[in-house]
Amino acid sequence: MEYVNKLKVFNDPVHGFISIPDELIFDIIQHPTFQRLRRICQTGLTEMVYPGSKHSRFHHALGAMHLMQKAIETLRAKNVEITDEEKNGVLCAILLHDIGHGPFSHTLENTLIENLYHEKISLFLMELLNGEFSGELDLAIKIFKGEYEKHFLTQLVSSQLDMDRLDYLKRDSFFTGVVEGNINPDRIISTLNVKDDLLVVDSKGIYSIEKYLTARMFMYWQVYNHRTSFSAEVFLTQAFRRAKELSRNGETLFATDALAYFLQNEMKDNLITQLDQFTKLDDSDVWASLKEWQHHEDIILSYLSRCLINRTLPASKIFNEPITNEKLKELEDEAKTYLGIEDGSYFVHQSNIKVIPYDKTKSPIFIMNKDQSLQEISESPLQILSHNLLNPIEKFHLCYLDVKKNI
Amino acid sequence: MEYVNKLKVFNDPVHGFISIPDELIFDIIQHPTFQRLRRICQTGLTEMVYPGSKHSRFHHALGAMHLMQKAIETLRAKNVEITDEEKNGVLCAILLHDIGHGPFSHTLENTLIENLYHEKISLFLMELLNGEFSGELDLAIKIFKGEYEKHFLTQLVSSQLDMDRLDYLKRDSFFTGVVEGNINPDRIISTLNVKDDLLVVDSKGIYSIEKYLTARMFMYWQVYNHRTSFSAEVFLTQAFRRAKELSRNGETLFATDALAYFLQNEMKDNLITQLDQFTKLDDSDVWASLKEWQHHEDIILSYLSRCLINRTLPASKIFNEPITNEKLKELEDEAKTYLGIEDGSYFVHQSNIKVIPYDKTKSPIFIMNKDQSLQEISESPLQILSHNLLNPIEKFHLCYLDVKKNI
Amino acid sequence: MEYVNKLKVFNDPVHGFISIPDELIFDIIQHPTFQRLRRICQTGLTEMVYPGSKHSRFHHALGAMHLMQKAIETLRAKNVEITDEEKNGVLCAILLHDIGHGPFSHTLENTLIENLYHEKISLFLMELLNGEFSGELDLAIKIFKGEYEKHFLTQLVSSQLDMDRLDYLKRDSFFTGVVEGNINPDRIISTLNVKDDLLVVDSKGIYSIEKYLTARMFMYWQVYNHRTSFSAEVFLTQAFRRAKELSRNGETLFATDALAYFLQNEMKDNLITQLDQFTKLDDSDVWASLKEWQHHEDIILSYLSRCLINRTLPASKIFNEPITNEKLKELEDEAKTYLGIEDGSYFVHQSNIKVIPYDKTKSPIFIMNKDQSLQEISESPLQILSHNLLNPIEKFHLCYLDVKKNI
Amino acid sequence: MEYVNKLKVFNDPVHGFISIPDELIFDIIQHPTFQRLRRICQTGLTEMVYPGSKHSRFHHALGAMHLMQKAIETLRAKNVEITDEEKNGVLCAILLHDIGHGPFSHTLENTLIENLYHEKISLFLMELLNGEFSGELDLAIKIFKGEYEKHFLTQLVSSQLDMDRLDYLKRDSFFTGVVEGNINPDRIISTLNVKDDLLVVDSKGIYSIEKYLTARMFMYWQVYNHRTSFSAEVFLTQAFRRAKELSRNGETLFATDALAYFLQNEMKDNLITQLDQFTKLDDSDVWASLKEWQHHEDIILSYLSRCLINRTLPASKIFNEPITNEKLKELEDEAKTYLGIEDGSYFVHQSNIKVIPYDKTKSPIFIMNKDQSLQEISESPLQILSHNLLNPIEKFHLCYLDVKKNI
Repeated sequence: MEYVNKLKVFNDPVHGFISIPDELIFDIIQHPTFQRLRRICQTGLTEMVYPGSKHSRFHHALGAMHLMQKAIETLRAKNVEITDEEKNGVLCAILLHDIGHGPFSHTLENTLIENLYHEKISLFLMELLNGEFSGELDLAIKIFKGEYEKHFLTQLVSSQLDMDRLDYLKRDSFFTGVVEGNINPDRIISTLNVKDDLLVVDSKGIYSIEKYLTARMFMYWQVYNHRTSFSAEVFLTQAFRRAKELSRNGETLFATDALAYFLQNEMKDNLITQLDQFTKLDDSDVWASLKEWQHHEDIILSYLSRCLINRTLPASKIFNEPITNEKLKELEDEAKTYLGIEDGSYFVHQSNIKVIPYDKTKSPIFIMNKDQSLQEISESPLQILSHNLLNPIEKFHLCYLDVKKNI
Repeated sequence: MEYVNKLKVFNDPVHGFISIPDELIFDIIQHPTFQRLRRICQTGLTEMVYPGSKHSRFHHALGAMHLMQKAIETLRAKNVEITDEEKNGVLCAILLHDIGHGPFSHTLENTLIENLYHEKISLFLMELLNGEFSGELDLAIKIFKGEYEKHFLTQLVSSQLDMDRLDYLKRDSFFTGVVEGNINPDRIISTLNVKDDLLVVDSKGIYSIEKYLTARMFMYWQVYNHRTSFSAEVFLTQAFRRAKELSRNGETLFATDALAYFLQNEMKDNLITQLDQFTKLDDSDVWASLKEWQHHEDIILSYLSRCLINRTLPASKIFNEPITNEKLKELEDEAKTYLGIEDGSYFVHQSNIKVIPYDKTKSPIFIMNKDQSLQEISESPLQILSHNLLNPIEKFHLCYLDVKKNI
Repeated sequence: MEYVNKLKVFNDPVHGFISIPDELIFDIIQHPTFQRLRRICQTGLTEMVYPGSKHSRFHHALGAMHLMQKAIETLRAKNVEITDEEKNGVLCAILLHDIGHGPFSHTLENTLIENLYHEKISLFLMELLNGEFSGELDLAIKIFKGEYEKHFLTQLVSSQLDMDRLDYLKRDSFFTGVVEGNINPDRIISTLNVKDDLLVVDSKGIYSIEKYLTARMFMYWQVYNHRTSFSAEVFLTQAFRRAKELSRNGETLFATDALAYFLQNEMKDNLITQLDQFTKLDDSDVWASLKEWQHHEDIILSYLSRCLINRTLPASKIFNEPITNEKLKELEDEAKTYLGIEDGSYFVHQSNIKVIPYDKTKSPIFIMNKDQSLQEISESPLQILSHNLLNPIEKFHLCYLDVKKNI
Repeated sequence: MEYVNKLKVFNDPVHGFISIPDELIFDIIQHPTFQRLRRICQTGLTEMVYPGSKHSRFHHALGAMHLMQKAIETLRAKNVEITDEEKNGVLCAILLHDIGHGPFSHTLENTLIENLYHEKISLFLMELLNGEFSGELDLAIKIFKGEYEKHFLTQLVSSQLDMDRLDYLKRDSFFTGVVEGNINPDRIISTLNVKDDLLVVDSKGIYSIEKYLTARMFMYWQVYNHRTSFSAEVFLTQAFRRAKELSRNGETLFATDALAYFLQNEMKDNLITQLDQFTKLDDSDVWASLKEWQHHEDIILSYLSRCLINRTLPASKIFNEPITNEKLKELEDEAKTYLGIEDGSYFVHQSNIKVIPYDKTKSPIFIMNKDQSLQEISESPLQILSHNLLNPIEKFHLCYLDVKKNI
């Protein structure tokens, strides 16, 4: 319908120039479903704490594809066979790996569409696009699903050392300014190799990998699980829980058509219709609605909305042990009394946060010695940190309306 | 009404840690009118070309305040007298200098509220805030208006070397990735001084200033006037021009309450009401509306909206000479025929772009020699570039619906 | 005797501008004993592996002084009392902390002057300078020796968190290009505090400290104990061991006067004379001599010299267990036969390398919680890495002439 | 004779990893004549002003070779035909382009060996190496001399846009910390192209080139012609002028054998012998000698040497007009009287410094438009700075012993 001002090179402050390798990739990027990612923030409500963290899923997807191009070049130079068709497949797979994200990425996942996670939606959308692109995404989908014979290609899309993580860690560190999380993807990629269809790391890269594993830990505790943005995300989820309840009870809330669909609908429609509505959503539907909902007569909804719009966030604490149910009940009661509402549970929330810095059993990282033998990294004689990163760390996050601090 | 999780230090990828110096500044930042700047992109539709350029006015305002703190420290260390009250005033002034920006910053300026530019709105809003803060902003307002006796304080807020520019050039270069525009604000600030109530530059800083002047030129031509994002801004303005026409003809368009106010209203209300509505707006109102308008039956509005949402932008060219009216008319006719509409003027637009790299007459930069004498920079014997930057460069930008390239 | 072109600001690629705070500091920097540090490489023979690593002790000393200025500003802003006299003392102490280094820093330590380490020589030289500067260094020396009542000032000069380490880690990482060792001194300094005369870290800085501890580990294994430069250092030491033997047996070797003094002398002179000669030495004496010694008739000396000049270095390996004496003897015999010499011990060397990432018993790091209570970092509930860094890592380094690979 | 610990990848803080592409390049780097460049500072006495500027010719040569690899990859990707043999030739040519530099690079050029510049010596040494490498450098030499049919290969080695300049500007900016001189070689290289055997720039790269031209200007005035290091270089030249006079008058000065050869010799020997001695020299010969010469009885030599060793440099000024001979004579007389010597000319020196920011006539830069047409950059409609960079800037530098400031 429309015509296009073809942009073949993107200027990325993180990786420098990102070039679009071919027409198919260009057309995917240009597709409305993909353009929509421009309006979805990569890091949800992290910007409440780190104001620079406004970068989009669109930007991340381009960055991951750029790193994939580098990984392919590197592996080919090391005589790993990757055909042009496979290259194209793995580039499309990484480009589309997050296409199923909705507004605020992980935050509203499983809230707007219940019981459906973004990986699954990504796959559905890839299949829809594959229809539009006459089957050109066949191989990409196979790789994405792990059904292609060269398994290392799937590992490049999804594993401990995939291009997704290399991009998002670097990018999120860059935009938040959390320098402890800075990694060097170029360096890591330059040490990748393939042995027996397994993605491995040349031994000279062992310290880059150990640094990467520690950087990821720092990002988990300083950014992804930051207690303040975590609280904001809890409140956002609660606001939507409330909005859905009100809608399904017959109240009309301000919303775009697509958002209204998800507030009212109980998922009786078929999946195609749901996905069609889903791909119309982005962060702006949510922000615009929250702004209007500030003035709604339901105290719970309006209070939660105002907190988010004005960034007046709840008390938020980290503990080594969980809070008892009695204590939680007590905090709920305080909120109830304070706001004059019937259900305080919207304003008190506990979660446990468990991070395994390096999960050796689930997705081990192999170091390839000069004699081509493989060793799991924490068992290499060269390692200086990995064996210390095997144990999970578990903490508990509590957020609640602190009625005493209220203004 | 709500309570606050006090954040005293912001992590800024551009300047590092930004600390909030006192309670008043903290309270201003926390005010809903200021928090709203979180949802206004600093660089309008530049993100259409530079996907990293999503940073907010909020972030810029904090950054400029941070630089102001440094400037004050530097000047005090050079024995320039600045009282604590003046420090506070100038910090508030820079923090609020852009508070009057609406959605998409400059793009919709003068479109939503006609004949009222952001500087003027900033001043009105500062005065409203001053009421809420019991006159604590008196001095800030005086400095902002240039009515305070120490004129150099006003120059720190608004002049060729103000903290506004030092922040936005650095920040926009950082987030776009246009390294040609990178400057070093710390270094420039370290060379600032005051002589006879004039903000001047110590002679050792002359090359930093010359580099800054050239970096600004690069930003003007590579970013601020980039032909593609410029076109997107033209289309956005046209979409709003159309939406207002339709609204005032009685059509009901999807919009938040506040946005509806500006679409329908012909500014008969008093200023207070207008400002109240204005401070409810941000980028999300615009994006959410454009998404809905894609499906409106008016071809002009829906076509423009779709172009913006899907990033299918018009042909966009730069010329040294203006295009004739005949040629423009011809292009309009093509659009008319192609879309089957009655007025093609929404789809063809010419602007002239004039940049004076260094406007010596309007706001000269003075170099202070070691003997304390002042010299205008382009007349200093040390200069190597400034005298070449005095002449304006003028080019012409044309964007139009290229019906032949249409898909 | 001479006159001076006063340079008050140094441009440092690592920290930006370094300014000289007062006349005394300026005069110390200008002193020939200090200027000599310009010609002593900070990282010995590390440049054999990392060609960028040519930076000098002079540069490091300035950098550490610069960080000390920042630390003092930060602590004063947190209401830690530091008088101007104390500031001056601690600045002089850090500036001179390494003045006792000789050619190639640590490498030839204890070889040229036996049984005398650089800290001791630094102290002697500070006392000599104190004489020249009429006692102006009294307080600096007290602080350096740990005899001043405010012990935290000594900690700023020498402890786990001293300005020496903050500068050299950052600087060595910068010049080698080993990004895994990159730290952020500004950030770390901004979290320093003093409690009960103890240098402590505000709890918000805990991750910066943990990152710093891991960065140090990376530098130890990737740079300071790099097996190749380590081998070069072994050969350099052996070359000087041989040169001293030959000299003391009456042979005349090419050398500058000062170097000849240390080759021939058996330290019968008094300390003043020794120090006087010592302060004439720098890296150039060594390089110039090695070049001439390449052509000396003693095979051991000429062979070692050629290896260093032409960078043809010995085999170099890291093991988890020590090599047996039998194996070492065997390698020595091979070298003996190969070169036709009587003593192969110059060409085979084993060392053990033991690194304690964080030595909690020797110099614990304390975190200060918001309630002002102190906790040793590995015992803090916030820690995510420190408790993993308490155990020493020990490895064994072997270098030897690999006669089979010989060209 | 010796054996080698093969290093195939260098870690460069400027460009990241530099890999050695093949065995021949490896062997050249390993050659003693090339290893010697490790001990020759790239920027002469610039370290007197910028203490970080200690990087070597060795490092620069590797960096330029690295950029050449990138340039070749880029051009090949744009379908410019470059055979593997040509690639090898141009890599060797850039690697060896500065092999003819002696101690302190440009400073002592034409002083040690009179009437012979480094380009000429580079060529002689390349021919000698070519003998050792059995003619493998034939093509490299042809390219270096501009005698190869594909002229653009010579342009990559030596022209306005050669890899030599791209590396040294970036590198010198990095190590001095003069950020005004920072350029982005990757970006510039990505815009290079070849048209009609001419090295050209794709039009999208025009601003990168304009930035590069201004960066170069900044480096000329802030670094290469910095008045203080310039003075030091004048004094170094004068010290050698004096040392040669004394030597040729029969005095014996401390020196290594190779340096003694150049002090005494009047170039009666054949070139091979001269070059053999020349390749033994590096900065250490000079520093070691200056240190000894401080104590020589000749006042002129000892005074100049002490100034350099202790960094007590002469008065140094920049003027727009030359100083008259009368004034120079006066200053010489002051020096004569002050030092009690017969000839004051060693202590007073005037030079003119002429910089043409962009010399369009000598080596024009061509922009290739999208239609493949070429335009000289200052004539392109896109240019915003180049036409301002055509005029030469000339200044005059005076240094002299300021007897009044003497201590």
